[in-house]
Amino acid sequence: MSELDQLTDRVREFAHARAWEQFHTAKNLTMALAGEVGELIAEFQWLTDGQARTIMAEPDAALRIRGEMADVVLYLLRLSDVLGINLIDAAQAKLDENERRYSVESHYGSAKKAPPPG
Amino acid sequence: MSELDQLTDRVREFAHARAWEQFHTAKNLTMALAGEVGELIAEFQWLTDGQARTIMAEPDAALRIRGEMADVVLYLLRLSDVLGINLIDAAQAKLDENERRYSVESHYGSAKKAPPPG
Amino acid sequence: MSELDQLTDRVREFAHARAWEQFHTAKNLTMALAGEVGELIAEFQWLTDGQARTIMAEPDAALRIRGEMADVVLYLLRLSDVLGINLIDAAQAKLDENERRYSVESHYGSAKKAPPPG
Amino acid sequence: MSELDQLTDRVREFAHARAWEQFHTAKNLTMALAGEVGELIAEFQWLTDGQARTIMAEPDAALRIRGEMADVVLYLLRLSDVLGINLIDAAQAKLDENERRYSVESHYGSAKKAPPPG
Repeated sequence: MSELDQLTDRVREFAHARAWEQFHTAKNLTMALAGEVGELIAEFQWLTDGQARTIMAEPDAALRIRGEMADVVLYLLRLSDVLGINLIDAAQAKLDENERRYSVESHYGSAKKAPPPG
Repeated sequence: MSELDQLTDRVREFAHARAWEQFHTAKNLTMALAGEVGELIAEFQWLTDGQARTIMAEPDAALRIRGEMADVVLYLLRLSDVLGINLIDAAQAKLDENERRYSVESHYGSAKKAPPPG
Repeated sequence: MSELDQLTDRVREFAHARAWEQFHTAKNLTMALAGEVGELIAEFQWLTDGQARTIMAEPDAALRIRGEMADVVLYLLRLSDVLGINLIDAAQAKLDENERRYSVESHYGSAKKAPPPG
Repeated sequence: MSELDQLTDRVREFAHARAWEQFHTAKNLTMALAGEVGELIAEFQWLTDGQARTIMAEPDAALRIRGEMADVVLYLLRLSDVLGINLIDAAQAKLDENERRYSVESHYGSAKKAPPPG
């Protein structure tokens, strides 16, 4: 069992122990995900690119950012569980697709079409 | 090496092959993440809770949702790589914290304080 | 001078008095906007539709929601000012377009294509 | 009647003519708002600060950005209408509060505490 599956199980059990399945509909979880991404983005909004590059060297900011990233992961795993989506498989398939859509030749050094990260 | 680490490596190599590191600053990646979460949320915005519950049984919608979830995963991994954050460790630490903050006794069946998923 | 223009001026002067123009780039303001929308969405994420319908009757929640809506407005006005976009004109033009795209006949009672609000 | 009130009325009538009130719950509208902000942010995510500064001089990008800003305005007005919130009053009250919280003396040139725009 992968560490990601173990983590997904732990999140599911955490929610079940508190009878939170009633709140964890797909709609609500996408909202919660957007809320956490909003908190993450707020950590970076006033930083220059230079400040953002070294932000993880500041203990307080690093702790907050790590915590916000964790919240995003937890809601993403919970949502994938509720929807029955295997995140690793979905991401690998998207990378296969991106390798076709964004060839090295046509997109080297170019962000013209808002390239996905993979 | 875990499947998540392998995927992170693949995303990094994909970006490197296209010289996209210049675009993948932490700020830009949080923006891209917010953009993809926006596309995901748009898939659910007009659905009733009942419709959302069975949406994955509709092939076209399921494909789109899986693709949006994949985009969110890919940007999240790329961002964690750029920031040097181990997502699994961060999420497990957050769950430890949540178990202390949200005891079963005090939060059973209650969303009073916008409970995190774990 | 419209009340919206007056408000935009007040926000600009507020920022200028604090030398915050350096932070108020278009990129940063879109991030701040996303952060505030995240806080707004978090107010609704665990509510049932029924609870959401009556939430403004609860003084504490109503105050928070009003405050989050205000933050969204303020960043939106600041962004429109930085970009030189007249929000009223842009919105009226979009409504003109939507009236063509979403005819009453073809879209009565239908959210099939994620209809915009106007 | 202000131009903002007139616009809010037009959006309400547009929705009513199509029997879209059923979709326009507060929850759904916050989701739609987040989706549109996600589209707006995607316009800026790969731009350098320099590119963002002159983006409105590029006709295609300017048209898209104006359209996304319009979508954000329309959903925000629709949401304010559904919630019964006067956006201008709420924003003026928030600016009053911000003038107290962020004095010129203490916050001149400082974004230390993620200052709101007003």
